[in-house]
Amino acid sequence: MKALVYHSSQHKALEEKPKPVIIDATDAVVKITKTTICGSDLHILKGDVTTVTAGRIIGHEGVGIIEEVGTSVNNFKKGDHVLISCITSCGKCDNCKKGMYSHCDNGGWILGNTIDGCQAEYVRIPYADTSLYPIPEGADEEALVMLSDILPTGFECGVLNGQVKPGDTIAIVGAGPVGLAALLTAQFYTPANIIMIDQDENRLNIAKIFGATHTINTHTENAKESVMKITKDKGVDVAIEAVGVPPTFELCTEIVCAGGHVANIGVHGKSVTLHLETLWSQNITITTRLVDTVSTPMLFKTVQSKKLDAKKLITHHFKLDQIIEAYNTFENAAKEKALKVIITNDAITLPSKS
Amino acid sequence: MKALVYHSSQHKALEEKPKPVIIDATDAVVKITKTTICGSDLHILKGDVTTVTAGRIIGHEGVGIIEEVGTSVNNFKKGDHVLISCITSCGKCDNCKKGMYSHCDNGGWILGNTIDGCQAEYVRIPYADTSLYPIPEGADEEALVMLSDILPTGFECGVLNGQVKPGDTIAIVGAGPVGLAALLTAQFYTPANIIMIDQDENRLNIAKIFGATHTINTHTENAKESVMKITKDKGVDVAIEAVGVPPTFELCTEIVCAGGHVANIGVHGKSVTLHLETLWSQNITITTRLVDTVSTPMLFKTVQSKKLDAKKLITHHFKLDQIIEAYNTFENAAKEKALKVIITNDAITLPSKS
Amino acid sequence: MKALVYHSSQHKALEEKPKPVIIDATDAVVKITKTTICGSDLHILKGDVTTVTAGRIIGHEGVGIIEEVGTSVNNFKKGDHVLISCITSCGKCDNCKKGMYSHCDNGGWILGNTIDGCQAEYVRIPYADTSLYPIPEGADEEALVMLSDILPTGFECGVLNGQVKPGDTIAIVGAGPVGLAALLTAQFYTPANIIMIDQDENRLNIAKIFGATHTINTHTENAKESVMKITKDKGVDVAIEAVGVPPTFELCTEIVCAGGHVANIGVHGKSVTLHLETLWSQNITITTRLVDTVSTPMLFKTVQSKKLDAKKLITHHFKLDQIIEAYNTFENAAKEKALKVIITNDAITLPSKS
Amino acid sequence: MKALVYHSSQHKALEEKPKPVIIDATDAVVKITKTTICGSDLHILKGDVTTVTAGRIIGHEGVGIIEEVGTSVNNFKKGDHVLISCITSCGKCDNCKKGMYSHCDNGGWILGNTIDGCQAEYVRIPYADTSLYPIPEGADEEALVMLSDILPTGFECGVLNGQVKPGDTIAIVGAGPVGLAALLTAQFYTPANIIMIDQDENRLNIAKIFGATHTINTHTENAKESVMKITKDKGVDVAIEAVGVPPTFELCTEIVCAGGHVANIGVHGKSVTLHLETLWSQNITITTRLVDTVSTPMLFKTVQSKKLDAKKLITHHFKLDQIIEAYNTFENAAKEKALKVIITNDAITLPSKS
Repeated sequence: MKALVYHSSQHKALEEKPKPVIIDATDAVVKITKTTICGSDLHILKGDVTTVTAGRIIGHEGVGIIEEVGTSVNNFKKGDHVLISCITSCGKCDNCKKGMYSHCDNGGWILGNTIDGCQAEYVRIPYADTSLYPIPEGADEEALVMLSDILPTGFECGVLNGQVKPGDTIAIVGAGPVGLAALLTAQFYTPANIIMIDQDENRLNIAKIFGATHTINTHTENAKESVMKITKDKGVDVAIEAVGVPPTFELCTEIVCAGGHVANIGVHGKSVTLHLETLWSQNITITTRLVDTVSTPMLFKTVQSKKLDAKKLITHHFKLDQIIEAYNTFENAAKEKALKVIITNDAITLPSKS
Repeated sequence: MKALVYHSSQHKALEEKPKPVIIDATDAVVKITKTTICGSDLHILKGDVTTVTAGRIIGHEGVGIIEEVGTSVNNFKKGDHVLISCITSCGKCDNCKKGMYSHCDNGGWILGNTIDGCQAEYVRIPYADTSLYPIPEGADEEALVMLSDILPTGFECGVLNGQVKPGDTIAIVGAGPVGLAALLTAQFYTPANIIMIDQDENRLNIAKIFGATHTINTHTENAKESVMKITKDKGVDVAIEAVGVPPTFELCTEIVCAGGHVANIGVHGKSVTLHLETLWSQNITITTRLVDTVSTPMLFKTVQSKKLDAKKLITHHFKLDQIIEAYNTFENAAKEKALKVIITNDAITLPSKS
Repeated sequence: MKALVYHSSQHKALEEKPKPVIIDATDAVVKITKTTICGSDLHILKGDVTTVTAGRIIGHEGVGIIEEVGTSVNNFKKGDHVLISCITSCGKCDNCKKGMYSHCDNGGWILGNTIDGCQAEYVRIPYADTSLYPIPEGADEEALVMLSDILPTGFECGVLNGQVKPGDTIAIVGAGPVGLAALLTAQFYTPANIIMIDQDENRLNIAKIFGATHTINTHTENAKESVMKITKDKGVDVAIEAVGVPPTFELCTEIVCAGGHVANIGVHGKSVTLHLETLWSQNITITTRLVDTVSTPMLFKTVQSKKLDAKKLITHHFKLDQIIEAYNTFENAAKEKALKVIITNDAITLPSKS
Repeated sequence: MKALVYHSSQHKALEEKPKPVIIDATDAVVKITKTTICGSDLHILKGDVTTVTAGRIIGHEGVGIIEEVGTSVNNFKKGDHVLISCITSCGKCDNCKKGMYSHCDNGGWILGNTIDGCQAEYVRIPYADTSLYPIPEGADEEALVMLSDILPTGFECGVLNGQVKPGDTIAIVGAGPVGLAALLTAQFYTPANIIMIDQDENRLNIAKIFGATHTINTHTENAKESVMKITKDKGVDVAIEAVGVPPTFELCTEIVCAGGHVANIGVHGKSVTLHLETLWSQNITITTRLVDTVSTPMLFKTVQSKKLDAKKLITHHFKLDQIIEAYNTFENAAKEKALKVIITNDAITLPSKS
């Protein structure tokens, strides 16, 4: 089968690999119909993610059709249409029982990381019963690809952890795909004001279309001053960090009001300075989180009931044969005005969806 | 009246000051029967607290007898026996309505800070109805002095914010009065293990008597290694910071388990380094808080029902005339084996309590 | 001044009464600009509310202008534009400190009940600082009248107590004003499906316009069967009772799913049968609540940010002189297709609002 | 093997049955070392539980040794020492993922109900990975038998659902084993007062020894009056129903304070009257629950750390051969002063425990 393989820093290739097979009784093999590229795939390709070794098929998002199941898989059978979670959950360990699948003793983020992933024609999914979700008849596949990672990440790490409430004023720092995913899902809780902060005017314009009530371009404005002006010097109830560098995190801690929440989504490569000499008395809460995808069933229902238009995040379409081109587009997101790109495995023909 | 007055860094005096009078209709004047000294009083005397100006009577803890009330005080009358909260709450602003009295628009920590405080024969208490608590007949005054600040601080900032649960393994870094207050009140929630970390063997011994299941002396042990050994490399569910310097805070972030809580109590004078490059994916929650004293009624009930022996924290007794000596003792806490010191206004005779 | 006065069962009159004056230092006198009629006013007029005695001015909703304040009112001054809460809160008692203003030791629902109310030219409001809310420049007065009672009632008793979550399927039994208030505010939390159940087709049509995804007319359908069909025999996550009679409450307990919530809003005059022989094992939560209006600031922000179109609930307008006619319309709500009626005190001229 | 078999109402026998075998790959067969009898076993023997058919081996509590595991059981192997949960959880369905194991699509309360149970030499446990818990070396087997059902039932249905808080005044109606289990575990949260209500003086005396601060014997006292006297007419914060008949449930709703919780544990055979005509405005929460055993890991830690002395509940010991005698004792609990009885399978020799 064809698969996108990581070889070394800056060296990847679409090449032929053996089709995966069932290893454990709890596995399923899924024929990928659609997958996508995540910001963390770019990190992998830079050589930043040391757990990824040469020869690994990367990618951890997608939808597909069950090709084969192990003998103890009960929830799925060959031919079932399924959504793949970026997080593999055994359902049996203490962390899984607590809903913290990201720290599953036997899974967590392993797909396209320590085991072969989804940017391929087929993928093996361990613990299929608890790591896949059934796709009902008539559902929109492309929308559901957004549920593999980007939407639960924005929602769980940003919105749920930030405890967004009706009437709140919130800020989201970073208007990339994950910041926009937080923007879309924050609206589940009806905040009064959503301030989007970025340096890319195109993305800020998209944020406005997606529901931001205010935008701040850090190229032309002092973000802290602008937030304080909007909030009449009170600061925001919730500040969501969706970039992953020290200045954006520190901005969040500067604009949060007393009693407020700073919810970190960004993947950080460096330590940050936490100004406890002022923050110690500010009654704030700071959270970090690797997405658990525990909210996937909830998000599923919001997509199915058309409360969440997940497809808004998709800007480009490619075939699996064109995945290198898809990477080029995604890597030049600002220039290409790219958010999420859909990669279709054209070897598969599904009945067309509305 | 006699009062302890701050003049400048390292310069304080017990001197004669005018007895306070009612200024606003919501005020009460309280005749102090017992007061105490807080760690933050020592900070004031070093000149660290810039809001405290020369001539200020300091102190923000105590119990006493109502001497006079303003015309719109309803809950209290002359002669009532009362507990003074270190936090003044108007009860009318948005933050008070949310229970965040520490950030009251009209109060907060003002006693012995921006207005005259409790280390005196009398004190004026603004917003008396919402800043004082009635002391029932037969209650133990000295125990209740511990409810002005030290116990709600340890409880709210450490235990409640840390979300201590039955069966948890928790660590408290710092076995001074506030760390011990956290230790006493953490036991409300029946954690399985309480690891107390300090460099003073005497305080660690006290911690054991107060209920710590493990102690770590940082003079002789590597705290992180010892915690990891105790917790079988999992880390603690809750790490409570009760010192206020970068190394103790950073230790807390190193010993907390995935999904755990770091609850800061310490008053910090410097920024700290937050290792988001590892913590971003650890699903942790970090909280800060200036005590709200919103839990005072709850703590009151635990003291009255003898579930909390608040007097355990008291090691020394002085008369108001001896307050300079009391300060000397408290400043040399390690040498003097001092925790909280009670200062009695001997001008007052109360019926003896059981 | 003119006022609507209760004399005895079925006997009310618009008559001349003395203008109220400040009694306590915490009082304000408010010149009413707009008021409305509540379902409980109809109960009063039937003689059902025994705490209301002959001669009482009724009504507990409205907006107006501060005419005079007592000496210890700090938050308001003559001329301020204010919203009146149906619940009077002293802000000082244990229940107020817990946010349970409905059971305030000194207030609660007293307006138009045990003290004179709002269907008059002027009203005296005790504990003004904690029972009134400032109306900012440019706000829409009529929308805000809906915040005195109907919206916080639907929201707190129905939506908050029912713990509505994104993706939920909920049912609201009763599409009168309070059921519709629950419908509007439930959408703050983005449920997937909202099933509205009533016997009045007009109200069900309004419910559809207001956001109901399904309606069930109990004249033509078996409500339980229809709900089970919609929910594929699972039942609803949240059932909100907004009528106040045994059959509607019992219906809620029959259609709630395992683990679900029954939130009672209705004012009941009779006991109901609770089928614990089946419900004991269903992991359900049943709540009751007299509105606390603790959510008024939150609702205010949603109205001001145009997330909640509160005026949707208003169907008719009258002048204070026409209040008897207003009552006739409201009493014949089904026939008149009435929801909330606005009664304007035409003695007052305000600058026109957008 | 020997097993206690239900044949028909009032007809049971200890008889020879085939040893169970692995049916599904997720099964384990456990050699029982110790089991016990539950109140619901008595209901079964009366013929009240219609899902139990003739020939069923009953019992749903116990500890033992793994005899054999299916091919997809990962957490356990032959020879492992395990605790059996009364609730079977597949870990894969929506309800299991939410922690509501009691309503597992594939399990729930099936042991000794719809499949053969634990009052036997061996038992087959479906979904072993998520329905068994490992017993560490040196743990006390008898204490752990109390974790199969009685302690999680008292804790989850009574204490957790009742939201017991430090300083609360709570009442527990019914001092049988489950009420006493609630009493023991309520103390995890340090309530100020625990009022135990029963008609058996012996059980009330045990309750006092177990930590009740007040007892009320309904044979000699009017329970409502006595509670109101103790609580100064306020009522209790939490009322826990641990009997399962209308008068005890209704008592709970009469003694709960405004804003309080009624937590039902009792298994009810009849409907009750809910006085909504008074309760509608009392801001109360009523909960029902079939135990989920989701708290078993937490309870385990409290037992292991000696915060909970689970063995207190054990009054009698029998061998499996004497199980009919054990039933006689348990059925005459008042006369025999019996709480929980331990039944040992004497065919097994374990190393002695401390």
